[in-house]
Amino acid sequence: MRTVEEHAGVVTGLLHRLPAQLLPLAEARGRVLAEDLVAGLDLPPFPNSAMDGYAVRVSELEDRAGDPIALPVSLPVSQDIPAGRTDTAPLVPGTAARIMTGAPIPDGADGIVPVEHTDGGVGDPGAAGATVTIHDLPVPGRHVRTRGEDVAVGTVVLPAGTELGPPQLGVAAALGVAELPVVRPARVLVLSTGTELVVPGQPLGPGQIYESNSVMLAAALSAIGAEPVLAHLVADDVTAFRAELDRAAAVGTPEQVDLIVTSGGVSAGAYEVVKDALTGQGVEFAKVAMQPGMPQGAGVLATAVGDIPVVTLPGNPVSSYVSFEVFLRPALLAAMGHAGTTRPLLWLPLSAPLDSPPGKRQFRRALVDAATGTVAPWGGPGSHLLAWLAGSDAMIVVPEDATSLEAGAPVEVWLLD
Amino acid sequence: MRTVEEHAGVVTGLLHRLPAQLLPLAEARGRVLAEDLVAGLDLPPFPNSAMDGYAVRVSELEDRAGDPIALPVSLPVSQDIPAGRTDTAPLVPGTAARIMTGAPIPDGADGIVPVEHTDGGVGDPGAAGATVTIHDLPVPGRHVRTRGEDVAVGTVVLPAGTELGPPQLGVAAALGVAELPVVRPARVLVLSTGTELVVPGQPLGPGQIYESNSVMLAAALSAIGAEPVLAHLVADDVTAFRAELDRAAAVGTPEQVDLIVTSGGVSAGAYEVVKDALTGQGVEFAKVAMQPGMPQGAGVLATAVGDIPVVTLPGNPVSSYVSFEVFLRPALLAAMGHAGTTRPLLWLPLSAPLDSPPGKRQFRRALVDAATGTVAPWGGPGSHLLAWLAGSDAMIVVPEDATSLEAGAPVEVWLLD
Repeated sequence: MRTVEEHAGVVTGLLHRLPAQLLPLAEARGRVLAEDLVAGLDLPPFPNSAMDGYAVRVSELEDRAGDPIALPVSLPVSQDIPAGRTDTAPLVPGTAARIMTGAPIPDGADGIVPVEHTDGGVGDPGAAGATVTIHDLPVPGRHVRTRGEDVAVGTVVLPAGTELGPPQLGVAAALGVAELPVVRPARVLVLSTGTELVVPGQPLGPGQIYESNSVMLAAALSAIGAEPVLAHLVADDVTAFRAELDRAAAVGTPEQVDLIVTSGGVSAGAYEVVKDALTGQGVEFAKVAMQPGMPQGAGVLATAVGDIPVVTLPGNPVSSYVSFEVFLRPALLAAMGHAGTTRPLLWLPLSAPLDSPPGKRQFRRALVDAATGTVAPWGGPGSHLLAWLAGSDAMIVVPEDATSLEAGAPVEVWLLD
Repeated sequence: MRTVEEHAGVVTGLLHRLPAQLLPLAEARGRVLAEDLVAGLDLPPFPNSAMDGYAVRVSELEDRAGDPIALPVSLPVSQDIPAGRTDTAPLVPGTAARIMTGAPIPDGADGIVPVEHTDGGVGDPGAAGATVTIHDLPVPGRHVRTRGEDVAVGTVVLPAGTELGPPQLGVAAALGVAELPVVRPARVLVLSTGTELVVPGQPLGPGQIYESNSVMLAAALSAIGAEPVLAHLVADDVTAFRAELDRAAAVGTPEQVDLIVTSGGVSAGAYEVVKDALTGQGVEFAKVAMQPGMPQGAGVLATAVGDIPVVTLPGNPVSSYVSFEVFLRPALLAAMGHAGTTRPLLWLPLSAPLDSPPGKRQFRRALVDAATGTVAPWGGPGSHLLAWLAGSDAMIVVPEDATSLEAGAPVEVWLLD
């Protein structure tokens, strides 16, 4: 039997790092930057005021010994500099310039007097007779944002591998960048098999159940930024199944995907369409020492139109979901450039005992109790108990050598979304 | 000056719970369920086998005293039941039925012998002369999934307010539900103001900077499942600005939104387009005791074509982002039906000292060091230092009465995405 790590290695090895694509900032959220973002300009691009007030030469408010002159003092207001002014003139000696937050500091000025430290000014700034009376001496450099103090031109602002969230996209915009090279998302064909399956919304006959894995796996793929492609439901028919796979492998077509994920048809039964269609075709089927999720398969299928990685998950819904979490989620996140590919992980004491089969790693649905800092299994281990999975917020990972854990025993816990 | 809580109350009060809409499962990920999902059927819908094997009457493998008969024993195989078989017949007395995982258990059978406990069967199941030799006695009920053991018809499987992730969508599909009623996302117009602003990708003149707030706020809105609508960049022109707002308020038009968020134009300067356009129009401007983000505004603007809630954020990028986190994120999440509206919160010791202005709640960009379990401020408090925000993964919240914190002091930390 394969260990969980051995099979995880096989699945990860199937997927290569995806290529980059250029995206407008508005579409790049959640993606991973494919190349370093190097600043093409300084931020701020020019010295500007951090306050609404008056720009002055501080030395003009000091005497020859460098001591402050007697205050208040009135100065003519020689110009008005709103934010966005593109033709700011140097500061006329012996005057002040009214200035707004973010506006360029005129050449010659080295201090900002906040408007609260003045009389607010008299007359139209820049017009004849306009003055401002200053009550408090400014400190040179205070309230001045110097050029490049946030970002210096030429520095790496966001290294390749950065996940692009709102602040990262904001800083790219501030640098004037309209598009970023990001790792392309993985396109993944999701294919459920089983003659017993009926599409939700259709009537259910005796012996039939509604198909739930494809919706669940597609949502899990979307949640990590991959692009799910849903195949039509395939009955337990080897020819129809192979035809779907060949379409998805066809190089250069719109149907081509990076990976095929199937569910069902891989256990020891007499009608196992996935196993029947793929055995000896490059896909290796193996038992993995875990519960749920023992029957697994993975490999590269060679078709006449192209090669395509295939991962075959077991069909029970909980087995399928756990297999995604354990094998596909980390492998796909890595292929899409993410550095962190694991769930947030905690060690918490159990609030209730649990049993686990010997020699298998058990993944149990669980609920974290934040108030007590403990975790409890939620529902039994049965792999058909999907409603319990829907009510859980975590998974407990029980190691292979543990068969019985008492309340209070610390366990590894994966926090789900 | 308003407290942070007072202004948060004003912003939250502007937004009402959004109405429900029906969405196909494939589009409902991340949304909040608007009504209880009640099971319309049992799950499993019929008793079925948890193993590939043979369905038997256990009593036929016991003697009159109820003790096991001598094993191995051979039984005729009277039918074959693959998964999906819709015409399963009752089990003929004195025979076994070959059965696959998930297939319906025939009436009369009460035990499953896993295929591993048999000779695997001889002959075509159901054909004359087909037999199976059983080595181990089955336990009644073992490997039988009973009808309704996961979900009983009529029970609430997902209560209103549930966030729909992959397992929740999976269980809805398993119940045959193709669409779910979910809370509609908030549509939010994002409008940056400032004559100094230039759209990324265009050349930058002297005194100009690239507009970054709208991209950043739009990404922050998308990240919580809201629908950002980006307005054209509005210069500091009251008429143009009001025209944009009126378009967004027009009831029943495609342009109508649930909320307008502006950035810039709200401080004490002489050219404050947002303040100039909205003062006395239902929007109240206030100073909030926080750093960054002191100048804030919020209210309902009445226009000729409809009323529209407006939240005005300060224009400095870091102020704008922090204001989103503190006021808009929780208010919008609540309006979209989410129960949890706060960031994951920790108390961690500082690894470096920090200063904070008296009487203001300070929000500092920060980095968490998972290895040491500490947090450090990342960059200074300046509200133009956007690159430092892009490099941080958390915010430290310094209370109003703290002016200086030593290394080692525990602080409240919000974990960003």
